[in-house]
Amino acid sequence: MKKIINEDTSKAVDEMLSGMLAAYGRYYERIGNCNAYRYKNFRREKVTLVIGGGSGHEPLFGGFVGKGLADAVACGNVFASPNPDLIFETAKSVNQGKGILFLYGNYEGDNLNFDMAGELCEFENIQTATVRVWDDCTSAPKERETDRRGIAGNVFIIKTAGAACDEGLPLKEVVRIAEKARDNVRSAGLAVSSGSLPGNEKPTFELGEDEIEFGVGIHGEPGVERSKMQPAHALVEKMYEQLKKELQLTKKDEVAVLVNGLGATPLFELNIVYREE
Amino acid sequence: MKKIINEDTSKAVDEMLSGMLAAYGRYYERIGNCNAYRYKNFRREKVTLVIGGGSGHEPLFGGFVGKGLADAVACGNVFASPNPDLIFETAKSVNQGKGILFLYGNYEGDNLNFDMAGELCEFENIQTATVRVWDDCTSAPKERETDRRGIAGNVFIIKTAGAACDEGLPLKEVVRIAEKARDNVRSAGLAVSSGSLPGNEKPTFELGEDEIEFGVGIHGEPGVERSKMQPAHALVEKMYEQLKKELQLTKKDEVAVLVNGLGATPLFELNIVYREE
Repeated sequence: MKKIINEDTSKAVDEMLSGMLAAYGRYYERIGNCNAYRYKNFRREKVTLVIGGGSGHEPLFGGFVGKGLADAVACGNVFASPNPDLIFETAKSVNQGKGILFLYGNYEGDNLNFDMAGELCEFENIQTATVRVWDDCTSAPKERETDRRGIAGNVFIIKTAGAACDEGLPLKEVVRIAEKARDNVRSAGLAVSSGSLPGNEKPTFELGEDEIEFGVGIHGEPGVERSKMQPAHALVEKMYEQLKKELQLTKKDEVAVLVNGLGATPLFELNIVYREE
Repeated sequence: MKKIINEDTSKAVDEMLSGMLAAYGRYYERIGNCNAYRYKNFRREKVTLVIGGGSGHEPLFGGFVGKGLADAVACGNVFASPNPDLIFETAKSVNQGKGILFLYGNYEGDNLNFDMAGELCEFENIQTATVRVWDDCTSAPKERETDRRGIAGNVFIIKTAGAACDEGLPLKEVVRIAEKARDNVRSAGLAVSSGSLPGNEKPTFELGEDEIEFGVGIHGEPGVERSKMQPAHALVEKMYEQLKKELQLTKKDEVAVLVNGLGATPLFELNIVYREE
């Protein structure tokens, strides 16, 4: 579990953001000294879009700030929510008086901290609204949809909400459109190996040499089923069955497919998966 | 060493390309039934650029076909050169009678096969020229520069050669410019773990739990120095020392930096490396 990071792991996120902003400084600027940044050319005179969440699963969320996407992002520590003050500062830095949409993955810490940030905004007469993303349909049954976790599907909802903001729509409409997108996105995934936290050599979860686990969360949350490794077509079939059951697609439906490796699956394998679907 | 591939690993590259072309079919088309494809809108009435090499280190080379880049690519099996016939078919499919530049990494198999493809082209009066990329300065001493391997630096030379082709320059000029780019690009790298070939569970090379190796090649070729894992700043310092010695930079020089993980290093870590440089 070797990581190319420095000795003081408490600074890893700050250093990661410094590098990212050094590389892409023509697009982004840091907000104060915070672990947060905004698109330099963020929306003016429109509803603005603020996203955020833990770090360690890049490009989510910071990679989705930019033209047609989010205006700013608040980045927490690895696998930890940004705190309310950080979200509040991030929101203020792109506030246009037209309202702000908070869009983020449905996790307890994020829910709590974004809600508190929303209250801080309210004290300063900044109107906010919230859309939580819960696309991972393996993380809870359909009856408990609002217990599901947000995962790669975030990108579709950020893009759709960004387009609604670009149109100059009022906050209520932006929320309606983002929720409609959210309600039509489903993800299913599997893990072939575990990650680990910086400074901690132990894997987040244990998985045998020949095992895989369906439905493991973005932070290593337990999945729904463990099995022996299977060929690509069987893995894809299994994930597709999940999605089909959820979405009840008909022949007329148009579907956008995202095949995604959460940052660590080689393109070679992702292309094979895309072929199978 | 789990891979998301199918049972018949001899078809893995074909399947990978099918998936890639299914995903990006609006840009690319397969050449016959070959493991090769071209940019649909490839250069007309100009020198064309053909690249190629083994598969398994995506996006190299196929990811660098497109506008301003290469016109077509020939893809060998995993870590194996495309054969001369495949390269020949690929070249013919984008031949404009203005000459073709073969641009590829400096490996024995590729050198041999591209040279033979060049001869096949000659029989059909298709003029070709060759530029081999040998940017990896840890793979042989300076005195044996032409023994060095090509690695991530390929992308700069493909881009530069592509721009020269776009300008409508004659083949000789395109070669001169591509060679000038090649002569100014240096790479240095390290490995924290080994890959493995599809269908082979054994890692390509052995590396201890707490070890890293400088200068490991793109296919797992032996590096120059093995050490215990070190913090990011020490690793970057070491790689930078290599590059500095090679390029003898002065304060006036402008440098383009590419930080690259050969497909498996998380963005989090790559950003930290970029910060250190």
